[in-house]
Amino acid sequence: MIKKRRGELIVLSGPSGVGKSTVIAELLSSRRDIHFSVSFTTRAPRVGEEDGVNYNFVTREEFERMIRDGELLEYAEYVGNYYGTSLKVIEDYLQQGTDVLLDIEVQGAAKVREKCPEAVLIFIIPPSLEELSRRLRNRNTDSVDVIAQRLEKSRAECRESVKYDYLVVNDNVMSAAQEILAILEAERCRVKKRIHLADSIIGTQD
Amino acid sequence: MIKKRRGELIVLSGPSGVGKSTVIAELLSSRRDIHFSVSFTTRAPRVGEEDGVNYNFVTREEFERMIRDGELLEYAEYVGNYYGTSLKVIEDYLQQGTDVLLDIEVQGAAKVREKCPEAVLIFIIPPSLEELSRRLRNRNTDSVDVIAQRLEKSRAECRESVKYDYLVVNDNVMSAAQEILAILEAERCRVKKRIHLADSIIGTQD
Repeated sequence: MIKKRRGELIVLSGPSGVGKSTVIAELLSSRRDIHFSVSFTTRAPRVGEEDGVNYNFVTREEFERMIRDGELLEYAEYVGNYYGTSLKVIEDYLQQGTDVLLDIEVQGAAKVREKCPEAVLIFIIPPSLEELSRRLRNRNTDSVDVIAQRLEKSRAECRESVKYDYLVVNDNVMSAAQEILAILEAERCRVKKRIHLADSIIGTQD
Repeated sequence: MIKKRRGELIVLSGPSGVGKSTVIAELLSSRRDIHFSVSFTTRAPRVGEEDGVNYNFVTREEFERMIRDGELLEYAEYVGNYYGTSLKVIEDYLQQGTDVLLDIEVQGAAKVREKCPEAVLIFIIPPSLEELSRRLRNRNTDSVDVIAQRLEKSRAECRESVKYDYLVVNDNVMSAAQEILAILEAERCRVKKRIHLADSIIGTQD
């Protein structure tokens, strides 16, 4: 019996304003077989948000049960609300051979690395801090002070990129998505993930 | 001044009969910017062999001078002749930012890994030992005994594949070449090779 290939667990991080969600949309449109993991949260849905699409909305009691039962790969509490990733859901997909994509910030990514050392961690950076600053300003939603704070936070996040496996520069959405696709294809060829193929040759009697 | 990207050193190995040279030809036809490294040897050219194409043919004195002067990345002696790879030639290309491809057997690859830990080692395996056996038989050049010996050698070589970074199965030349291209693209995205890009963002004052 041929052992089914396990899916890849892919973690994508990047500073606010880097254009990560556009890159993810491009990626998912060319690799429809990737499961994009939807986080769980206890916060109330905002107008237009859909359960199971933007988040899986659960009660505080349910979330705390998930914590107790070890069902979460990582979680954090922000301003009184929980946010987390279900290990159980992800594990089911991975076992079926489906690649799973997590859009997660740097602390969450560090926890994933700890619990799933085989995960592939990709950090998306802007072409320059000037370009990131320009992108944040073009949103026209934040004051100069808020933009300065966000930039400082982005710079701090970029410092964490050394803990990742790959760096992808988002100067162009298509080429950034293309690089991520190449990374996923290459990761499937890693010896540790394919050693059973060599074993079958070493072990076969002709 | 932007630091020039260093080229990748790519080592391809695989058992006799796996179709490695066909995969390499396909690879080089789609990536004309890769420098394919030509080995040095002291053996006499055979009919049709060209100096600088099949091998760089040198005298025994010249080869031994290269050994003494530390100019060789790896070398071996087979039936009275030397075969080796010039570190000097390769290093010049890598510094210019050109990727360099070495077609080299497992012992040579181990030496490259030792001297150039950043090298990317790819092992090409056949889809099965039966298929490899079929390919060797189809050559119609060897006796049954010789084929059996070659198969045993191939199996031993496949045992060494655990020391490589990537395993590529050559069940189809195009898809094997495509996987190698993805590996090369992914390797350029490795954090350790791109950390200067993150540094420029962390370090830039806005």
